[in-house]
Formats: sequence, C-alpha cells, structure tokens
Amino acid sequence: MNIIDIINKKRLNKHLSYEELSFAFNGYLSKTIEDYQMSALLMAITINGLSYEETLNLTKIFIDSGETYSFDKKVCDKHSTGGIGDTVTLVVLPILASLNIPVAKMSGRGLGITGGTVDKLESIPGFKINLTKEEFLDSLNKNNIALSSQTDNLVPLDKAIYALRDVTATTESIPLIASSIMSKKIASGASYIVIDIKCGEGALIKTNNDAELLSKWLTDIGSGFNVEVKTLITNMDEPLSTSIGNALEVLEAIEVLKGKDTKLTSISIEVASLLISMYENIPLEDAKIKATASLKDNSAYNAFNKWITSMGGDLSKVKVSNKILKLKTNKAGTITKISALACGKLALKLGSGRLTKGANIDYSVGIKLLKNVGDNVEVNETIADLYVNNLDINLTKEDLNIYKIS
Amino acid sequence: MNIIDIINKKRLNKHLSYEELSFAFNGYLSKTIEDYQMSALLMAITINGLSYEETLNLTKIFIDSGETYSFDKKVCDKHSTGGIGDTVTLVVLPILASLNIPVAKMSGRGLGITGGTVDKLESIPGFKINLTKEEFLDSLNKNNIALSSQTDNLVPLDKAIYALRDVTATTESIPLIASSIMSKKIASGASYIVIDIKCGEGALIKTNNDAELLSKWLTDIGSGFNVEVKTLITNMDEPLSTSIGNALEVLEAIEVLKGKDTKLTSISIEVASLLISMYENIPLEDAKIKATASLKDNSAYNAFNKWITSMGGDLSKVKVSNKILKLKTNKAGTITKISALACGKLALKLGSGRLTKGANIDYSVGIKLLKNVGDNVEVNETIADLYVNNLDINLTKEDLNIYKIS
Repeated sequence: MNIIDIINKKRLNKHLSYEELSFAFNGYLSKTIEDYQMSALLMAITINGLSYEETLNLTKIFIDSGETYSFDKKVCDKHSTGGIGDTVTLVVLPILASLNIPVAKMSGRGLGITGGTVDKLESIPGFKINLTKEEFLDSLNKNNIALSSQTDNLVPLDKAIYALRDVTATTESIPLIASSIMSKKIASGASYIVIDIKCGEGALIKTNNDAELLSKWLTDIGSGFNVEVKTLITNMDEPLSTSIGNALEVLEAIEVLKGKDTKLTSISIEVASLLISMYENIPLEDAKIKATASLKDNSAYNAFNKWITSMGGDLSKVKVSNKILKLKTNKAGTITKISALACGKLALKLGSGRLTKGANIDYSVGIKLLKNVGDNVEVNETIADLYVNNLDINLTKEDLNIYKIS
Repeated sequence: MNIIDIINKKRLNKHLSYEELSFAFNGYLSKTIEDYQMSALLMAITINGLSYEETLNLTKIFIDSGETYSFDKKVCDKHSTGGIGDTVTLVVLPILASLNIPVAKMSGRGLGITGGTVDKLESIPGFKINLTKEEFLDSLNKNNIALSSQTDNLVPLDKAIYALRDVTATTESIPLIASSIMSKKIASGASYIVIDIKCGEGALIKTNNDAELLSKWLTDIGSGFNVEVKTLITNMDEPLSTSIGNALEVLEAIEVLKGKDTKLTSISIEVASLLISMYENIPLEDAKIKATASLKDNSAYNAFNKWITSMGGDLSKVKVSNKILKLKTNKAGTITKISALACGKLALKLGSGRLTKGANIDYSVGIKLLKNVGDNVEVNETIADLYVNNLDINLTKEDLNIYKIS
C-alpha cells in the first residue's frame, strides 16, 4: 500500500477500503504521511465525496485515534455546528438535568466568528472547565451535567485533520464535517444526540440543501454506530440571541432560565424536547410541555445554579465591560435585517473571539442588540450597545454594518 | 487576495484569473504559499481542470519564473513525453543538422523507468552536457545542434511544481502536463516544435483518448504563444528500440545513423520530417525523402560525429558492461508481447535509471532485446542479453517477465 496510489484512487472517484483510509489518516497522525499528501487527499474527498461505507470507516478511524468515554447509564449530548449568539447549550443542559436526564458533553473553544461554550463558561470566575475523567463522572452523577473542555486525547486525529482542512479550502465537505462531528460525539459516550445544524450566511453551512444533506449523513452515521441522532436545522442569517460575547451570553442564558421568552428560549426548548422524547421515549409534544415547565417553575434555573456552583463558578462575579459605545442609526426606517455574519465579525474585532487557536479573548466585551427585525427606528436612535475594552477602538463604517434599515 | 479563496474557487470549478494564478504559483515559488496549500490547489485543478485561458496564463507564469532563451534565427526543438528505449533525439538532431536546420534543445535526466537524453549523452566520455548560454549559441552556429542539460534557472517554477505533483497523485492532469512541457519549450526559444506523445502502459499517458487531448492542448498553447507545434502519438506498450540503457542506446542510435532500418529509424524519420516540413514549409512527403536520404548518405551520421566531437565526446570510448546475463526462454512458442513497463523496471533494477533525483546511475548496464514480437523461440533459447555491473545481482521471476510467449 502506498499513499500516492490511495490519493490517486480518490482522485479517480474510486472506493477506499478501511485499510487504505487507515493507512492514510493514521499515517498522517503518526507523521509518516506528509501534510501536502493529506491535503491532496482531502481535496479529492471534498470534490469527489465519500460513500456511506467510507464515511463510517473514517469515523471509526477517527474515534479509535484517541481515548473514548463510556458510562454505566445512557446519557444525552447536544451539538451545534456553530452560530452567532448561540448559547443554547447553557439553557438545554439545565432543563435536562432538572428532569433527571443525564447529559455529558465535551465542548470546544470558539474559532473565527463563532463562539464556543468553553469560552462562555470561562467568563464565570472560578468555573472549572478542564475536568479529569473522574471529575467528569462525578459531576454527571451529582449534577446530571458533565461538561468539560475537549481533552487533547479525544479524537486527536480530528484535531490534526481539522487544522489542515481549515487552511486548504477543504472545510466544506459534508461527509468530512459529519464524521468530524460524529466521531467526537460517539467518543464522548452519548446514546442520544441532538445536532443543531446552523444554516445561513453566519454559518459554515450556507444552503438548506447542504444542511439537509448533512442531517442525513449525521443520522446515518449514528445508525451505523447504534446511536440515536436527531437533527434540527436553524437559520443563521441572523444571530440566535440579542447578546453576542462570552459574559453577555451567560447573562442572556440566565435570563432565559429565569423565564424570559426569546428566540433563544424557543430553540432551546426544541433541542431539549428532542432529547427528552428520545431519552424517555415519549411524544415530542409531551417532551415540549416538560421542557417548558422546567423553565417556568425555575427548576432548570436551579439545576444551572447547582451545576455552576459545584464546578466552582461564581455567577455574581460575571463581569461585562463598563465601557459602552452606543451604535446609533443614521437614518429613520424599519429594520429589515440583522446580519449574523456582520455581528460575528464585529464581536471578533471587539475582542470576544479569536482568529487563531490559542489567542487570548476578552470575556467582558460584545454586542447587545437593542432592536429586532421589524422595529421602526428614528434617526440617531441607539440600536445596539457595544461593550468594548477600549473606548478608542478604531471601528470603520463596515464594522458597524450589522443592521439593514429601509 | 488570499490563497484559501483561490483554492476554494478551483474546488468549486470556477475560473481563476491571471492574478489569482500568479498569486498562488509565484507565491509557492517564493515560499509564501505552503506546499499543503499548493497540493490542494493542484488536486482541485487535476480533478476540475483548467480552461484554455487559465492554461495559457499558467504557462506564461511558468515561463516568466526563470530565464528565457532567444535566437537571431528560427530554431527547431523536439520533445518526447518519455518512453522506454526512446533514443529518437540522438537520431533526429543530426538529421536536421545535416540539412542545415538549426535545433536547440534543453534536455532532462531520466527519472523512474524512463530514460533522459542527458544521461545517454553522459555515457559518452568527455561529452560536455552543461553549456553556458555562450557555449550553447556557439554550438548552434557551429553544429546546427545545441543541446544542454536544463539549467536550474529555466522555468524553476515547473521544477518545484513537478516535484510536488510527483508525490501527490496530481501528475495526470492534461493541462498541467501541457503547460509544463510547453513552458520549457517556449522558454528555450524554439519556433517549431514536434512533441512525440508516448502512449501505453510504459508511459505517463495510458490511453489514446488522453493522448489526443494532450495533443490538442499542446498545439493550442503553441498557437497562444505564436509557436508552431506538431505532435505525433506513438505506442509505448512496447519498447521503442531493442536497446534499453544509456550506453546501449547511444550505440543503437549510431547503428540507425549508419543506415540500420528499425522501429527507431522510422519514428526518427517521422519526427524529423515534421520539423523539416514546418521549417522549410514543404510537404511532409518531400520532407520524409530528405530525412531518409540524410540517413542513407551518411550525412546525418557525419553531423552527429561533428557535434559529439565538438562537445568533447569520444565515441570510441563508449563502454557497455562486459558482464552479461543471458535471459533464456522456459518454453517454446511465439513471442506475443514485449512489455515496455517490464523492460523499464528491469533496466532500472540493473542500474540504468534512478528512482530519486540525484541518484547515481550506471551508464554501462541495460537490456539488449534479441527477439521481436512474432518470432518463434525454442525452450532455453536466449531472448535478451542483460548487461549488469554485478553477475550476482538478485533478479526474481517477475523482474525477468519482459516477454510473453504463447
């Protein structure tokens, strides 16, 4: 077996066996395959695709590249493909926990314009995000929630491949996206998984067609590994909530957990309901009633507090910047659009995200949107508060182009 | 402009502008573009192709990456895409020179199973193969033949890209092959070019369809640069001559120049005739008569001797090994096939070629085929002489599988 023949087969759109995929991908991890060879193979895969069998095999190779988690009970997990103002995890986990449904989740940090749950939780002073296996299991038993930042040893192959895809225009392969997501979910030990596929200009997946395709791949891979997967496709042309930025999003999640009814509330209930209905094997409508009640009667909020406190977090110390720039309208009219992409880019510029792995971020900055689509505004009306770490920040007209007014 | 967007465009089979191609390819040469990014782009090009305009632009970028040659008169050049026992250059150049038709050629070394003219000429003791520009022009004026090993500064971009294509399964892109060949021919300053496209199991191009396609690309690129290009497609399932190996091939060329009529003779006349008819603007049939006469009346042979001597070469000292293994038949029957691929591999194993650039080769070894397709043979009859540097060489049954007898 040699790597050039393997690349050539995929170039010619031929089937790669488990052994050939393993030779290439494990070889890449062990550095016997060069990065320029792997990137050529990834491009051939991105253009010519992978069959279902190839994708299952690749997912297995990914999973087997590192340590895996397993539990003595069935647990839930949820995943979002990444959006702007997407704080669903911080609402869904407490809803499930309050209903005595265990949820175990490995989370990532944000990269580019999309935020990561780990960064949001790190904006809570004291919160412990890197858990050992023992601490993880202990939190699962005590809080019905176990959340840890993804260890380096969970699907290390995915980490290596993702970094290469990111710089070689091979991120948009549906089977590669699917096997990347599913390998991490399966290695984390979940039995029931909901995946929220973000679709729109502020997301990796731009078209509904691709979202539907990814949905099918995710559920099909789930079947191949005997894991129950449900997906939902949610729009990411606009931000998911009115807060963008780490501490701001934590505070927004708390508002929702306390009963505030927003777009974030309804998507969180949707995600939670899918998991409840799978875990308890009940109709979705019944699950929805349970999830809604859990928010109404404060039980989700209590579960959240219990979990955060148990992890050492002090919610009273969550801090947003006291330096606020007012974003004002330059004309009167009706707001016809709020751009997720523009919000993500602006938040990144304010310092709430990172362009390169390992870069520092400022938890206290971000955007608070004060108006919704359909609202009428006057000239010079404040439509958003920008929480900044420096009032002298150099913002251009393009940076501030987050609303469309007609 | 950024490289990821450029790769992505070609992934989506969109048109790349001159500026985008230049950014990527010149960036690769100046090392601002990483090899894993270039290999992803090359794979996208290999799968999705290049338009005529893109290929012309890429050829121009290739040419402009290094020094170019130009002459005060129109000169001819010939090129072969590489075959086994392909000594056509050593016959064609003297034919042209004897007819007062100047030919200027940059040649390469052999790599893999195909030999290179430079290696063959280096088997002539004393022959000077690395010419300065002055020596090159001087030889052109004195001998009507200028032949030098390709300088590092002739299309350096092609050298860099070819090395990467070789290890990433992106060698088989017809537009990339065409622009690689044509950039070197045009940079070398020729006005009339014949390209002998080798097609078959012992060649880079395996199918007639690909050969026809390449032929069209080569002539079309020629038109784009105002250079007259003619091609011929010759079979490379079988070796082109009965000698394979550097010194052996020089001796074979001398036999043909002295009037021996073989397959090598007829292809050499074909190539020479195409160039003569372009250069003198005469019908191909008339050109063929001139080429044939040049071999018959020894004028090509005299031109060859004059050129070799003028370059310091001493033909009386060309040496083949005196260690000869006899390859014998194990059954009686008729020879139905002589495999070019198997001959190439065997010659490589004997030491006449190199697998990696810069490896040493033994000029004195090789294969002398003693039988042709259609010949009847007895059991234990000698069908080939193997010139080896060590009689103890370890040859397997597969190594010796160059004839098929039924």
